[in-house]
Amino acid sequence: MKLFDGGMAPNPRRVRIFLAEKGIEVPIVPVNMAAMEHRADDIAARNPLRALPVLELDDGVILTESVAICRYFEALYPDPSLFGTSALEQAQIEMWHRRIELKLLAHIQAAFRHLHPAMKEWEVPQVPEWGEINKPKAVDFMRFLDGELATRSYIAGENFSIADITTMIALDFTKPARIAIPDDFEHLRAYHARMKARPSSSA
Amino acid sequence: MKLFDGGMAPNPRRVRIFLAEKGIEVPIVPVNMAAMEHRADDIAARNPLRALPVLELDDGVILTESVAICRYFEALYPDPSLFGTSALEQAQIEMWHRRIELKLLAHIQAAFRHLHPAMKEWEVPQVPEWGEINKPKAVDFMRFLDGELATRSYIAGENFSIADITTMIALDFTKPARIAIPDDFEHLRAYHARMKARPSSSA
Repeated sequence: MKLFDGGMAPNPRRVRIFLAEKGIEVPIVPVNMAAMEHRADDIAARNPLRALPVLELDDGVILTESVAICRYFEALYPDPSLFGTSALEQAQIEMWHRRIELKLLAHIQAAFRHLHPAMKEWEVPQVPEWGEINKPKAVDFMRFLDGELATRSYIAGENFSIADITTMIALDFTKPARIAIPDDFEHLRAYHARMKARPSSSA
Repeated sequence: MKLFDGGMAPNPRRVRIFLAEKGIEVPIVPVNMAAMEHRADDIAARNPLRALPVLELDDGVILTESVAICRYFEALYPDPSLFGTSALEQAQIEMWHRRIELKLLAHIQAAFRHLHPAMKEWEVPQVPEWGEINKPKAVDFMRFLDGELATRSYIAGENFSIADITTMIALDFTKPARIAIPDDFEHLRAYHARMKARPSSSA
């Protein structure tokens, strides 16, 4: 198999961190997203939605969508589990993962895509008013998360999970999105520092 | 256990259809979303994000997020599987489910929330320009889906899955969102009619 990667964008990064946490090595094909290579025919032939990452299996079967690729590896290599084992744990990780995706990452991405000059060709048309509205929505959810993290070590409970990976990439993505994580969100900031200290964070 | 339900909104509907497809009966507590009951203390005490549906287990543990609730029931009652069984099938269903959520349902919801007068109190502030931009994005993805459905019966392959449930609720939601499904998307329209003919669609 081979993984068509996309550098520092959140979704390609999510898969690389997931693989690092699992200790899985997959041959990587680098794709330069800044040069719009993900919109070229080589990727479009594999993913008509022209997005990365793309996993090509040895028999030519294609998997796209970062979380779907993660689930494939979770099923093949269940240990350590990053999506949970019991019914309740699976559901709690899914619940927190969706909260993070819909209430944090989505707002940060919208601010980045609708306000950053480099996104003009990607997000057509940019709506700066919409980008600005998303910034305080992201901060509101960070406040909620800061309260939650006062009582536990990881997003979805006492174990590291995919919800932590998505939270780490979301919080890191505040920088290009130009959203400040307020100084007084101390639990969130300490959590972020703990996640960045994991070897997987540089994957 | 009991399920705090929310009527015809897409997420509460997704869980009811899922339960109907599985043949599972859960005691329902109706919550009137039109009267904003989901923002009242009764729900906020269970889900600080004040959204429905909410599943309360017998020991008081709370699960929110419709897909997380569905995963809980999938793990408890695996047959018929609606999230897939093999690693590849699980990944393909997740891939299609995410494509449908991010490229279809999200655009339809954005059009509804930013343009419909009844949403003024829900989506603060409404950005009509953003609502309008989402309409052709939803139709673009429908065109892609119409091509895909020329060659198979269900969204993620040869079996009915959660991806079909989300597609059905998304296509039904085009009506309040005032997005027309073009007449010449014949495969998509035939698929939609097949899904609506399933007994679960009225759940």
